[in-house]
Amino acid sequence: MEPNQATHYSQRIEHVLAACLPTDDRAPARLHEAMRYGALSPGKRVRPRLVYATATALGVPLSRVDGAAAAIELIHAYSLIHDDLPAMDDDDLRRGRPTTHKAFDDATAILAGDALQSLAFEIVATHGGLDDRPAARVAVMRCLAAAVGSRGMVGGQALDMASEARTDVTLEDLETIHNLKTGALLSACVMMAASAADDLSADVIDCLEIFAQRIGLAFQVRDDVLDIEATTEQLGKQQGADLAHDKATYPALMGLAEAKAFADRLYTEATAALDVLGAPADDLRALAAEIVKRDH
Amino acid sequence: MEPNQATHYSQRIEHVLAACLPTDDRAPARLHEAMRYGALSPGKRVRPRLVYATATALGVPLSRVDGAAAAIELIHAYSLIHDDLPAMDDDDLRRGRPTTHKAFDDATAILAGDALQSLAFEIVATHGGLDDRPAARVAVMRCLAAAVGSRGMVGGQALDMASEARTDVTLEDLETIHNLKTGALLSACVMMAASAADDLSADVIDCLEIFAQRIGLAFQVRDDVLDIEATTEQLGKQQGADLAHDKATYPALMGLAEAKAFADRLYTEATAALDVLGAPADDLRALAAEIVKRDH
Repeated sequence: MEPNQATHYSQRIEHVLAACLPTDDRAPARLHEAMRYGALSPGKRVRPRLVYATATALGVPLSRVDGAAAAIELIHAYSLIHDDLPAMDDDDLRRGRPTTHKAFDDATAILAGDALQSLAFEIVATHGGLDDRPAARVAVMRCLAAAVGSRGMVGGQALDMASEARTDVTLEDLETIHNLKTGALLSACVMMAASAADDLSADVIDCLEIFAQRIGLAFQVRDDVLDIEATTEQLGKQQGADLAHDKATYPALMGLAEAKAFADRLYTEATAALDVLGAPADDLRALAAEIVKRDH
Repeated sequence: MEPNQATHYSQRIEHVLAACLPTDDRAPARLHEAMRYGALSPGKRVRPRLVYATATALGVPLSRVDGAAAAIELIHAYSLIHDDLPAMDDDDLRRGRPTTHKAFDDATAILAGDALQSLAFEIVATHGGLDDRPAARVAVMRCLAAAVGSRGMVGGQALDMASEARTDVTLEDLETIHNLKTGALLSACVMMAASAADDLSADVIDCLEIFAQRIGLAFQVRDDVLDIEATTEQLGKQQGADLAHDKATYPALMGLAEAKAFADRLYTEATAALDVLGAPADDLRALAAEIVKRDH
C-alpha cells in the first residue's frame, strides 16, 4: 500500500470509530470510558484497513463500508478485552498499556466488551452508507455475525483455550483453531466489503475467499513467529508468552524456519489470488505484504 | 392469555431455540453445551412470548417473528450468564440450577455469553421468516441492537452495579436503571414485532411504546417485591438477595405496599394503552397481567 493510502485508511477509521463510540459525558460514563479505552487504544487497524482496501479493489465507495470497517474493529477490540480477563488469558499489558480490566475493573471490562459487540451490530444496522441498500446491509450483517460467534472467532478462542491443556495438538488442529480465531474475522473484512459491491462474478468471490483465508492464516503464523523474534517493546505485550505457556504454535510444531517459509508460501498464494483484480487491488497486495513482513 | 395460547407460544419458542442453538456434537462441543445449558434452562420465556403476543395483536404471522423471539431470549440468556459471573453478581444458583460458570467454568461462561449475543444477531440476520422483507429485517436488527448495548441493557447493568456503592439512589435513578436494564429489552420485544408488521399508524406505535415502557417497569417492580415476598424455591435463586446487599429497590425506597400499588398503576396504564388494538390484543393483556401477578 502507498504510505499515503495506508495513512488515509488509518485516519478514516480513527475518525469513524471516534464518532460512533459513545462519549463519556453521557451515562453510564465509566462504561463509555472503558469502551473508548479498549476500542481507541493504539493499534494497527489491520481489519478496517482490509475492509477499505478490498472496497478499493472492487470499486466500492469507502463511505459504503465505513460501518463494516468500524464494526469489525469494535468486535476485535471486544474480543481482546475479554481474552485479557483473569478468567481467560490473564494479561496485564496490551498494546503497551494496562489491559482494560487493569485500567478499570473486571466487571466493567466484561460489560465494555459486551457493549462493544452490541455496538458493532448496531453500526452495521444503522450506518448511513448502506441506507439505500437494505439487501447489501443484510448481507454484511450475515458475514459479520457468522464470523464472530461459536463457529467463528469465539469458537476459535474456546478451542485455543482447550488446546492449552493438551499435548497432542496437531498442525491440522492448529489450522482449525486459527482459521476460526483469527481467520474468520479477517475473511469477514474481505467478504463484508464484497457484500457491499453491486455485483461480483462467482470467480471474483472465489478469489477473494482464497485471498482472505491465506492471509488470515499468514497473519497468525507471523504472530507466532513474532512471539519468539520480537521484543516486548515492539509487541506492546509480553514477548515469549507462548513459549512460557508451552503453547502449540507453528514454530513449536514445524520449527521456526519452516514456519517463516510457510508464511511466505501463504503470502504468495494470497497475492496470486488477487491477479484477477488487476491494479485496483494494489492496496490489498501491499496490506498482505505488511501482514507477513510486520515486526510487531 | 388463554392457557392454551400461552402454551402454544412457549412450545413454539422452545422449538425455535432448540433448532437455532448449535448442538454439542460439533466443535467446540463444550462451548456449545454451555450455550445450550444457559439458553435452554427452564424459564418463563416472557420475552419471546411478548414478541409473539404483540405479533398476534398486530395480525403479523408468528413465522415472521420467530427470529426476533429467539434472538431476544438468547440476549436475555447471555446477560444472565455474564451477570452471574464472580466478577459481577457472583451468583451460584439460577432458575434452580447451578449458574453456567458453576456448571462449567468462568472462561467458558464468558465465551458462551459472547457467542449467544453473536448468535442472536445472526438469527435476526438470517431467519427465513423475513427473507422477502429486507427493510423489516433491518428495522428489527436496529431495535435489537439499540436495546442491548451501553444505552440499553448493558448500560442499565453498569448503572445498577455503580448504584450498589451509593447510598443516595433516588426513585428517579432507579427508574432510569430499570428502564435500561430490564425495560429496554421488553420494549424491544414489542417494537421488534411492530417492525415486522407491514404498516402501522403512528398512533398504534405510540400506544405500543407506552405499553412496553409501563410493563417493563412493572416487571422490575414486581421483581423487587418478589425478592421480599417469595421463597428461594419459588424464585429458583436466593430470596432476600437485594435486602442482604442493601440494594436500592422500589420497596426499599417507597415501602412494600406502595411498591405493589405502583406496579398495579403501571399495569392499568399499560393495558389502557392497548385499547386501540381491541380484541386481538387479548394475549398481550393476559401476559401483562401475568407479569404483574406472578409469584416467581
